[in-house]
Amino acid sequence: MRKVAVIGAAMGRIGRYPELMFQDLGWPAIKGAIEDAGLERKHIEAVYCGSAYGGRLAGQRALRPLGMTGVPVVNCENACSSGATAFREAWYAIAAGRYDRVLVLGIDKLSMLGGGVLPGQPEDWEVDVGLTMPALYSMRAKRYMHEFGLTREQLSKVSVKARRHGALNPYAQYQKPVTLEEVMAARLVAEPFGLLHCCPTGDGAAAVVLCAGELVAQSTTKPVWVAGADLTSGRFVTGYRDITTAEITERGAHEIYEETGISPQDVDVAEVHDAFAIAELMYYEALGFCKKGEAIQLLESGATSVGGRIPVNMSGGLLSKGHPVGATGAAQIVEMIWQLRGQAGARQAEGAKVGLTHCTGGGIAGLDHGACAITIFKT
Amino acid sequence: MRKVAVIGAAMGRIGRYPELMFQDLGWPAIKGAIEDAGLERKHIEAVYCGSAYGGRLAGQRALRPLGMTGVPVVNCENACSSGATAFREAWYAIAAGRYDRVLVLGIDKLSMLGGGVLPGQPEDWEVDVGLTMPALYSMRAKRYMHEFGLTREQLSKVSVKARRHGALNPYAQYQKPVTLEEVMAARLVAEPFGLLHCCPTGDGAAAVVLCAGELVAQSTTKPVWVAGADLTSGRFVTGYRDITTAEITERGAHEIYEETGISPQDVDVAEVHDAFAIAELMYYEALGFCKKGEAIQLLESGATSVGGRIPVNMSGGLLSKGHPVGATGAAQIVEMIWQLRGQAGARQAEGAKVGLTHCTGGGIAGLDHGACAITIFKT
Repeated sequence: MRKVAVIGAAMGRIGRYPELMFQDLGWPAIKGAIEDAGLERKHIEAVYCGSAYGGRLAGQRALRPLGMTGVPVVNCENACSSGATAFREAWYAIAAGRYDRVLVLGIDKLSMLGGGVLPGQPEDWEVDVGLTMPALYSMRAKRYMHEFGLTREQLSKVSVKARRHGALNPYAQYQKPVTLEEVMAARLVAEPFGLLHCCPTGDGAAAVVLCAGELVAQSTTKPVWVAGADLTSGRFVTGYRDITTAEITERGAHEIYEETGISPQDVDVAEVHDAFAIAELMYYEALGFCKKGEAIQLLESGATSVGGRIPVNMSGGLLSKGHPVGATGAAQIVEMIWQLRGQAGARQAEGAKVGLTHCTGGGIAGLDHGACAITIFKT
Repeated sequence: MRKVAVIGAAMGRIGRYPELMFQDLGWPAIKGAIEDAGLERKHIEAVYCGSAYGGRLAGQRALRPLGMTGVPVVNCENACSSGATAFREAWYAIAAGRYDRVLVLGIDKLSMLGGGVLPGQPEDWEVDVGLTMPALYSMRAKRYMHEFGLTREQLSKVSVKARRHGALNPYAQYQKPVTLEEVMAARLVAEPFGLLHCCPTGDGAAAVVLCAGELVAQSTTKPVWVAGADLTSGRFVTGYRDITTAEITERGAHEIYEETGISPQDVDVAEVHDAFAIAELMYYEALGFCKKGEAIQLLESGATSVGGRIPVNMSGGLLSKGHPVGATGAAQIVEMIWQLRGQAGARQAEGAKVGLTHCTGGGIAGLDHGACAITIFKT
C-alpha cells in the first residue's frame, strides 16, 4: 500500500442554482482542485464521481465543459455518502498502484427535485407512508430527549453553533448567524424540529485531487495524508431498535480507529453529518468524542466550537454550509484539507493535525440500511 | 497484482416484472452466484453493484432480503456500462489485495420507467429535441449503409442471428426465433429500424463472485480468470463526426489488447453491446474482429454464429436476451462464465478458452461521451 495525499481542493459556494445546468455546477470545482494541485488536466488519470440524484453519467457531464473526456470515470452512488465513497475508491486505487493522480468530484443539484423533503428510495413503503428524513430524525430526537433529558433549548444550541461557524465560511449556503430565540421560534417542521434544526437542500460541487506519495513533492509542500477510509452498510434489523444510537457510524468508527491506530482522542477537528440537529449529538457519541448521553455536555462545554478541544463542523456543517447530498462527502473533505493546511481563515481550528470526516445516510429511513463513510486525514 | 477468478455466476430470466420490487428482482441472482461459488453469505467481504436507473442504494436494497447487510457496498453508475464498471472495480479491489471475495451485482428494473425509449441524461438537449437512442443509431445505420453498401436485408440478419441464439437461452427475454421476413416486416421504429432491430427494455439482475487466485481451489475446479478489464469514457467532439466508427470501443479495445497481450484473433467467443442491429456490426470492426466495412461479410460467413470461428452474442445479445441497462454488463459476464466453463448448453461455443465482453453507452446520445467497459476472460 502506497501513501496517498490530497494535493488539491476546491468547491463552489453551496446554494440553490436552478438556472445552472449540471455541467455548469461541476466544472469550477474541478478546475479549481486541479489548479490548486499545480497540475493540468492531462495529469489526471481517472475520475471518481459521487452523486446521489445526478442521473446517468454525472461525472462525465461535469467534466464536459473542460473537455476532460476520455479518462476512465467511475460514478459512485451511496446516498449521502456518495462523495465519500468515491473518495475512498480513488484513495484505494492510488494506494494499490493503479493510478498516480486521480480527481474526486462530489456533485448534486437538488433544485432539480423541485423542493420539499428528499425523495426516499424507490419502493420504500416506510417513506411512502410518511417516514421521511425529518420525520425519522424527529423520532430519534424525541426518544433521545426522553432517555437523556435533552431539552429543545439544548438541541437548538447545535443549530446556533452551526450557523455561527457557517457565518465564517464563504462557501456556506447560509452565512447569517442565528440566536437561540430564532432557532426556538422558527416554523415547526416535525416536532421537536423547527426549520433551523433541519439542513437545507441545495446544489453544489466539491473536488479534490489525490496523489501517490512519491509524486506529492512535485505539487505541494503542504500535502494532507489519507490515514484511512472506511465504508460500511447498515445492518438489517426488524422489531425493537435503539434509535438513539447511530449503529452504522459506531461500527464504522470502530473499524477505522482500529485500522489507522488513531483514537477519538487524537482527532483535532471533525466534520460530521449533521443533517438534523439531533444527528450531530448522536455522532459525538458514536464517533467516541464523548460517552453515550453526554453529547449535550460536550456541546455546552464549548469543546466542539471554534477554539474548543475538538471543533466539529467548522464549515457550518450540513445545517449551515448546506447539503447537496452526493457532494457533501467531498465538501467535508475540502473543508478538512483547508483546516489541516491552516487555510480556513476565521473558522480555522488552530494547530489541527488530525481530522475526521463522517457521512452517513440513505436506506430504509436511515435506520437499518444505508451507507456510512468515515475518513481520517493527517498532516 | 494478484490473479483473480470468477468462481460463481447466476442470473434470472430477463423480462418485464412490474409486480416485483427491486429487492425481489435482485436476491435470486445474488443467492445463486454465492451458492454456485460454494460459499456462504458470510464469505462475501464487499459488494459492487451496477445500476443505471435503480435510484439510491440499489445494492443495499437488493441485498436486504438475504439479510446481507453490513458489508461495504459501492454502487456504480455508468449508464449501459454500470454492471461492467462495478465488475472492474471489484476485480481491481481483489487484485490489489483489498478483499479476497467480492460479489458483483448488476440490476435494473426498466419497467419502473413506464415504457418507451430510455430517458436521456438529465439536461441533454439533443435528447430533448428528439435524438433518442433509436434515432441516433438509425442515423449511424443510414450512414453505414451509405458508406459501405449495407442493405436493410443484410442488417436484418443481425436480428435473425440474435433471436436464433436467444431461442437457445432459457434466461433470454425473447426465446422465439424470427425469420428474415419477420424482421423486415416488423413495425417501423426509426428508419431503417423496425421493432426487431431494436433491443427491448426489461428488468433483470445478474451476479458473479470474484475470488483471489490463491483461494480459488477452495471453491471450484473450473475458475474463469480475469485477464483484464478496461474502462474508457468518450471524447468530447464537436462538428463533423464519423458516426460509423465506435471510437470509444475502438480505443478501449486497443487498450485492453495491449494490457493483456491478447489479440482479437485470440478471442474465441464474445458478447457485444448490440442495443441496435447496426451496433453489433460496428463493434465487430471496433473490436478488431474484422476490418472496417467488412462486418457484414463476417456475419454472412457464419463466423459469428454458433459453430463459427468467433461466435458473438451466443446469449442472444441485447436484441434477444434483453437489456436491463445496469444489469447488462453483469449478464454478459454470467453468460461468458458459462461459455468458458462449457455450461452453455445448446448455445455452447465449443472449446472456447478466451472470451470478451463489451458494454458501451450513455452520454450525449452516445456519440461523444459515455462509458465503455471491455473485459477479457480466460480459462
